[in-house]
Amino acid sequence: MSQVRGSRVAVIGATGYGGLQTIRLLEDHPHLHVTYLGGERSAGRRWSELCPFLPILDDPEVQSPDPDKIAEFADYAVLSLPNGLACQLAPQLLKRNVRVVDLSADFRYRSLEQWKQVYVHEAQNLNRDDVQLCREAVYGLPEWKGPEIAVANLVAAPGCFPTASLLPLLPFLKQGLIENDGLIIDAKTGTSGGGRVAKEQFLLAEASESIMPYGVVGHRHTSEIEQLASEVAGQPIELQFTPHLVPMVRGLLATVYGRLRDPGLTAEDCTTVLKAVYRHHPCIDVLPVGTYPATKWVKYSNKAVLSVQVDNRNSRLVLMSAVDNLIKGQAGQGVQCLNLMAGLPPTTGMSLLTFYP
Amino acid sequence: MSQVRGSRVAVIGATGYGGLQTIRLLEDHPHLHVTYLGGERSAGRRWSELCPFLPILDDPEVQSPDPDKIAEFADYAVLSLPNGLACQLAPQLLKRNVRVVDLSADFRYRSLEQWKQVYVHEAQNLNRDDVQLCREAVYGLPEWKGPEIAVANLVAAPGCFPTASLLPLLPFLKQGLIENDGLIIDAKTGTSGGGRVAKEQFLLAEASESIMPYGVVGHRHTSEIEQLASEVAGQPIELQFTPHLVPMVRGLLATVYGRLRDPGLTAEDCTTVLKAVYRHHPCIDVLPVGTYPATKWVKYSNKAVLSVQVDNRNSRLVLMSAVDNLIKGQAGQGVQCLNLMAGLPPTTGMSLLTFYP
Amino acid sequence: MSQVRGSRVAVIGATGYGGLQTIRLLEDHPHLHVTYLGGERSAGRRWSELCPFLPILDDPEVQSPDPDKIAEFADYAVLSLPNGLACQLAPQLLKRNVRVVDLSADFRYRSLEQWKQVYVHEAQNLNRDDVQLCREAVYGLPEWKGPEIAVANLVAAPGCFPTASLLPLLPFLKQGLIENDGLIIDAKTGTSGGGRVAKEQFLLAEASESIMPYGVVGHRHTSEIEQLASEVAGQPIELQFTPHLVPMVRGLLATVYGRLRDPGLTAEDCTTVLKAVYRHHPCIDVLPVGTYPATKWVKYSNKAVLSVQVDNRNSRLVLMSAVDNLIKGQAGQGVQCLNLMAGLPPTTGMSLLTFYP
Amino acid sequence: MSQVRGSRVAVIGATGYGGLQTIRLLEDHPHLHVTYLGGERSAGRRWSELCPFLPILDDPEVQSPDPDKIAEFADYAVLSLPNGLACQLAPQLLKRNVRVVDLSADFRYRSLEQWKQVYVHEAQNLNRDDVQLCREAVYGLPEWKGPEIAVANLVAAPGCFPTASLLPLLPFLKQGLIENDGLIIDAKTGTSGGGRVAKEQFLLAEASESIMPYGVVGHRHTSEIEQLASEVAGQPIELQFTPHLVPMVRGLLATVYGRLRDPGLTAEDCTTVLKAVYRHHPCIDVLPVGTYPATKWVKYSNKAVLSVQVDNRNSRLVLMSAVDNLIKGQAGQGVQCLNLMAGLPPTTGMSLLTFYP
Repeated sequence: MSQVRGSRVAVIGATGYGGLQTIRLLEDHPHLHVTYLGGERSAGRRWSELCPFLPILDDPEVQSPDPDKIAEFADYAVLSLPNGLACQLAPQLLKRNVRVVDLSADFRYRSLEQWKQVYVHEAQNLNRDDVQLCREAVYGLPEWKGPEIAVANLVAAPGCFPTASLLPLLPFLKQGLIENDGLIIDAKTGTSGGGRVAKEQFLLAEASESIMPYGVVGHRHTSEIEQLASEVAGQPIELQFTPHLVPMVRGLLATVYGRLRDPGLTAEDCTTVLKAVYRHHPCIDVLPVGTYPATKWVKYSNKAVLSVQVDNRNSRLVLMSAVDNLIKGQAGQGVQCLNLMAGLPPTTGMSLLTFYP
Repeated sequence: MSQVRGSRVAVIGATGYGGLQTIRLLEDHPHLHVTYLGGERSAGRRWSELCPFLPILDDPEVQSPDPDKIAEFADYAVLSLPNGLACQLAPQLLKRNVRVVDLSADFRYRSLEQWKQVYVHEAQNLNRDDVQLCREAVYGLPEWKGPEIAVANLVAAPGCFPTASLLPLLPFLKQGLIENDGLIIDAKTGTSGGGRVAKEQFLLAEASESIMPYGVVGHRHTSEIEQLASEVAGQPIELQFTPHLVPMVRGLLATVYGRLRDPGLTAEDCTTVLKAVYRHHPCIDVLPVGTYPATKWVKYSNKAVLSVQVDNRNSRLVLMSAVDNLIKGQAGQGVQCLNLMAGLPPTTGMSLLTFYP
Repeated sequence: MSQVRGSRVAVIGATGYGGLQTIRLLEDHPHLHVTYLGGERSAGRRWSELCPFLPILDDPEVQSPDPDKIAEFADYAVLSLPNGLACQLAPQLLKRNVRVVDLSADFRYRSLEQWKQVYVHEAQNLNRDDVQLCREAVYGLPEWKGPEIAVANLVAAPGCFPTASLLPLLPFLKQGLIENDGLIIDAKTGTSGGGRVAKEQFLLAEASESIMPYGVVGHRHTSEIEQLASEVAGQPIELQFTPHLVPMVRGLLATVYGRLRDPGLTAEDCTTVLKAVYRHHPCIDVLPVGTYPATKWVKYSNKAVLSVQVDNRNSRLVLMSAVDNLIKGQAGQGVQCLNLMAGLPPTTGMSLLTFYP
Repeated sequence: MSQVRGSRVAVIGATGYGGLQTIRLLEDHPHLHVTYLGGERSAGRRWSELCPFLPILDDPEVQSPDPDKIAEFADYAVLSLPNGLACQLAPQLLKRNVRVVDLSADFRYRSLEQWKQVYVHEAQNLNRDDVQLCREAVYGLPEWKGPEIAVANLVAAPGCFPTASLLPLLPFLKQGLIENDGLIIDAKTGTSGGGRVAKEQFLLAEASESIMPYGVVGHRHTSEIEQLASEVAGQPIELQFTPHLVPMVRGLLATVYGRLRDPGLTAEDCTTVLKAVYRHHPCIDVLPVGTYPATKWVKYSNKAVLSVQVDNRNSRLVLMSAVDNLIKGQAGQGVQCLNLMAGLPPTTGMSLLTFYP
C-alpha cells in the first residue's frame, strides 16, 4: 500500500453524529486512522466520559480545534460542524497542507453569492469573501465527481437529501431521458438528521408515532439539488422538494417523480439505464423491477439502493432511493471521499452489508 | 332526539381493527349502541377473552354472522370484513331492512366491471353480478356526499388513502384551479393499515426503523381516488399515487402535488379556498400558511388537518393532509356516516380533540 | 348537579405535557371548565400559536400567573410546574380560596424536612418553611385517600411511578400478606415522563431502539413510594426501585416483586385480594390469572390495569401494573382529584376506554 | 493461519433471524466462509428473492438440508431451527464429522429428562432418547465454557435471556458474594426475539408504543438460567425470571436483583469483581459506577455491557447487562463459539464497535 497518500485523520466536531460516525468507521479502517479529536463544547474532556458507548484506545481528550496542532497530527481533517463554522477553519487548514472533507453546507455551492442567499442567517454573522475557495471546492458525490475528489484539497460532502435524490435522477437528466420540468422529490428522513442537539421537535415524545412535512417549498437542500441537476442536465432546473420527518432514528428515502420523454420506455429499460451507469460503483445497488427499497436495507452501510417504476398509461416515472442518512448521506460518504483522496478503493474499511432486521 | 332513526348497530368483523375502532367509538356514543357482534373466526368466544383491553358490559359472545339475527337485533350494520365478503352479506341485510355501512372496497366503485378489474383476485373466486347495488351504493365521504349518505341504505366508506388524498384535492379540482394532468400523491401510512392480521412485513422487527414504498404504480386505491377526482373535475383524471409504509401504528399523511392554472394565486389564496369549502365541516381543520400537519395531531380523532403551500417560482402547489387511518380513514368515518343516516350531527359521540403527545 | 362545588379551573404551566393533558381532559368535561391559562415562558402568546394541535374556543392568550387574577377567574388551580415553583404559588392561591391540585413533588411529603433531603437541588435555592402546609396537603391517590381529597384545599398528585407501584402493592401491605422486607420495584416508562423539555437523552435518535435503567438506587420516587407504603404497612419499609426508559411516548409499567407470608396463597387468591379491594373503584381493572397488562391497554385512559402471579415453588409474588404516565400517572389523576373535590363521581368527563391498537 | 481447523460453514435455517445474522457476520469473516445454505420452507429458491437486502456472491440457492451434502460442503454447521428440529439433524451431522453449533434449546440441558419437562410441547411429538448426546453437548457461553467449547463437537448456544442474565450474575455466585436465595431477574427484550415468524403479538401495530410482561413465572429460560447458576454456585438455585416485550427491534437488558452477603461491599467493590473476572474477555465491557448500559450501546455488536449498583442501606445489589439479542444473544455468540472451535481468537471477524445512534 505504498501509494496511500497520508493516513492520519483529524475529526473536528467529534461528538456530534457526523463526527461520531466518522470516528466509528475509521476505527475499523485498515489505512486511515483518527489521530486528533476536536470539539469546542467538549474540549478538555475525556472521550469515555462523552461517549461511553464507543470506547477508543487510550481514551483521548477532545481538543479545542487548533490549526497548528491539527496540521501537526493529521494529513486530513473531517469537519463536522454547524454551518458557518467550517468556512472559518478550512482555509487555515488548507494553508497548512491539511486536506479537508467538510460535512457542512459551507462549500457546497460554487458561487459564494448563492450560499449567502440560501444560508442567510449564517451569512449575516460572517464576513465571508472566500469566492475562490468556493469555486475550487469539489462537491463530494463520489459516483459523479470521483476524479475531481481524488485530487481535491477541499471536498464539500453533499447533504443527505441531495445524495439520495441525485443518485437515481442524474442518469436520466444526463441522458436526456426525462423532462426537466415538473420534477418532484418527496423525501423522508429519520430524526437523526436533526443532529445531536436537544430540540423539542426531535424529542421521542414529539416525533414518535407521527410523520410530518417541514420546510415545504424553500428547504435549503432544494437549491443544492438544483445546482448539480442543472449542471448535469445542461440547463437550469427548478424542482419541488419536500422533506418529511419519519419516526425512526436513521434512514432516508427519496421518491422522485418525473415524466419520460420517450413514451416507449419501460420500467425494465429504466432499470437498465441505472444499472449501466452504476455498474462499476460498489456503493450503488439497483433493484429488479417490482422490488422497492426499504431504508432498513441500508442501515449502517454506505450503500444507496435504487429502484424505478413506470406508469405506462402516461410515461410517468417513479424513482426510489434509500440511504442511511448518517452514512452514505453523511459520514460514510465523507470516508468514501477520504478513500479516493488517499488513493484507496472507495469502500475501503466499510462493509456494504446491512444487519437485518 | 325523537328524530333519531334507529339506534342499534351490528358490528361484523368485530375483532379486526375496523371493528374494534367502531365498537370503541360507539361505546361512548349517546345514541347509537352496539347490539350485535359478528365474526367468523371468533364466533362462539367471549369478548373478554378476545379483547381484554376493551371491556364491554356483560361480556357478550361473538356470533357467526346470521342475517336474520342481525336484522332482529340491529337497525344498522357496520361491515368490517376482507374484500369480497361484504358483497355477499350486504344484500341479505338490505333485504331485511338493515342499513349497511361497509368499510371494505366491495361497493366503492359505481361500476361492478371496474371493481372486477381492480380486485381481480377477489373477483376470481366470486360469482358477483350485483350491478344495480354497486350503482346505488353511496361513497361515504361525508364532506362531499353528505345528503346522499343521509338517505342511503348502503354506504361504501372510502379507503384511508382516498380520504386523505381527496379532501385537500377536490376543492381545487371542482373549482378548476388546478391542472388535471400531472397530479402526484405521495402518501405515508402507519402499519395498522395492514389490519389485525399476522403478516411478516408488518412485524415490528421488519417495519420498525424503516420506511419503504409499496404498490408503486397500480396500487388499488389509485383508481378509487381517480373515480371521485374525475367525477368532481368533470373529466377523466389519471394520477400517480405512491403509498409508503411508515414505522408508526396509526396515522396517514398525503402530500399532493399539482400545478395551479392561475400563476397569480398564492398560498394564502389557496388556504382561503380550503377554508371556504370546509367552513361548515367540523371534522376538517385548515392550518394557516406555513404550519404543516403532523399525523400526531389527529391521532384517535375523526379529524383531517389540511395545509397548502405554493412555489411561487412556478405555481406548483403542495397540498398536505393528515388523518388517523383507523378513525377518519376508516371507523370514525363509518360512524360519521351512521350519524348522518340516523339524522344526527356528523360528529355525535366523537371527540375531535387529540391527546398530545 | 346543584351540589357541584365550583366549576372554573385555572391551569398553570399550560403548555407542558401535564398542563396540556389537563386542558385536553377538561375540554370534554361536562362540569369543570378551564377559565385561565397560565405560563411563564409562553405568557402573552395566543394558544393556537403554541399548540396548533389542540384548538381551544376563542383562542385565549396564556397569562403570566397572577394570584389575584387566578382567584378572580377560577375556583380550582392545577399547577403543572417544575419542582420548587408550586410551593411558591400555592400558598398565595390558598389564601385567596382557590383550591389547588399540584402535579409536582412540592407537597408530596408530609415532612418538609424529608422533601429538602430528597429535592436537595430545588431546596438549595429556596427559603421554604411551610411546614404546616406540607403537613396538611393530601396525597392525591384517590383510591386510597378519597375522603381526604374530597375536602382538601391542597392536593399533591402522586408521581407516575408511585401511582403504578403503590396500587397493586398497598392491598398486600395493608393486609399483612406480604413480607415488608425485600420488596423490589422494576419500573419502565415512556419518554414523555421527561416532560416537554428539550433534553438530549430524550431525543428520538437517542432514546429510540434502546432501553436503559437510570437513577438506579436513589431515584427520588423511591422515598415517595416508601412513605405511603410505610404508612399503610404500619412500619418503615425500605425497597428497591429501579426505573427504566422505554422507547415509547406514553405508558408506564411497574413490576413489583415480593414474598408472600402464607405459602399456601395462590395467584387466584391474590387476584381475589386485588379485586376485593378495588371492586368499587372504576379506574382500576384487575385481570384474570395468566393475563398480563400491556401499557397499550391504558393509553389515553385514566385506568390502571393490575395483574398478579405467584411462583408456587417459593411463594414469590409478582405484581404488575400498567398506567398511562400522563393520565392516571399525572393529569388524569389530577382531574380525578378535582372531581372528588367538586363532589362529582371520580371518572366524570373521562372515558375509561382505550383506543386499540 | 495454518492452525485454523476447517473453515467451511453450513447455515441451516438460513432465512430466519438467527441464520441471517450468522450469514451476515460470516460474510465479513476472514477465515470462516458460508458454503451451504439450508432451509425447509425456502428450499429451491434463490437467495436474492428471499433476502434482497443481503446480497451474497453468486446468489446461491437454498437447499433442503441433506446431511450428506452438508458433510460434503462444510466442516461446521450452525443450526438455527425451531426447537425440536435440531435434535433430529445434529446426530446425523456429528456422525459425518460435521461439528455443530445449535442455536435452539435442544441441547442446552445436560439432562434430557429436564428438557422434556421444560419443552413439553416439542417433546410430545418426538421420540427422543439421545441422553448421551445431551450429556456431552457443551453450553456455549464462551466466557464461562471457553476450553470446553474449543474441543466440542456439539455446542448449544445459550438463549438470549440466559446470556444477558448470567454474565453479570455468575461472578458473584461463583465467589459466594451474593445470597443464593431471592434472586430476581427482570428482563426486557426487543421483538426480534420472537423470530422471523408472523405472529399477531409481534406486529408493529400491536407491540409498538407498549411494554408488557409475558411468561411470568415459568418462562422456559428460567430453568436454563437456574441450571448454570446452580452449577457455578455449587448448590440448587431457584430464581424469579420475568421477561418483558419492549417496542424495539433489537436489544436485551437484564436487571438482576440480589443481596450481598457482606454488608461492607460497595458498588466500587462489586465493579472491581466484574472487571477482574472479565479482564481478558474482549466481548465484555464493565462500566464505571453510576454509568448504566443502554441496549443501543451494543446494537449489532457481540458485546455485553455490564454495570452494578448497591443500595448501601440494605446491601441490595442491582446488576445490569445489555446485549444485542440477535448477536451476543444468539448468532454472534454462535460465531464466537465457531471461532474457538476453529482455534481462532473469539472475536475474529466481528467488530465490537456499535454504530451510534
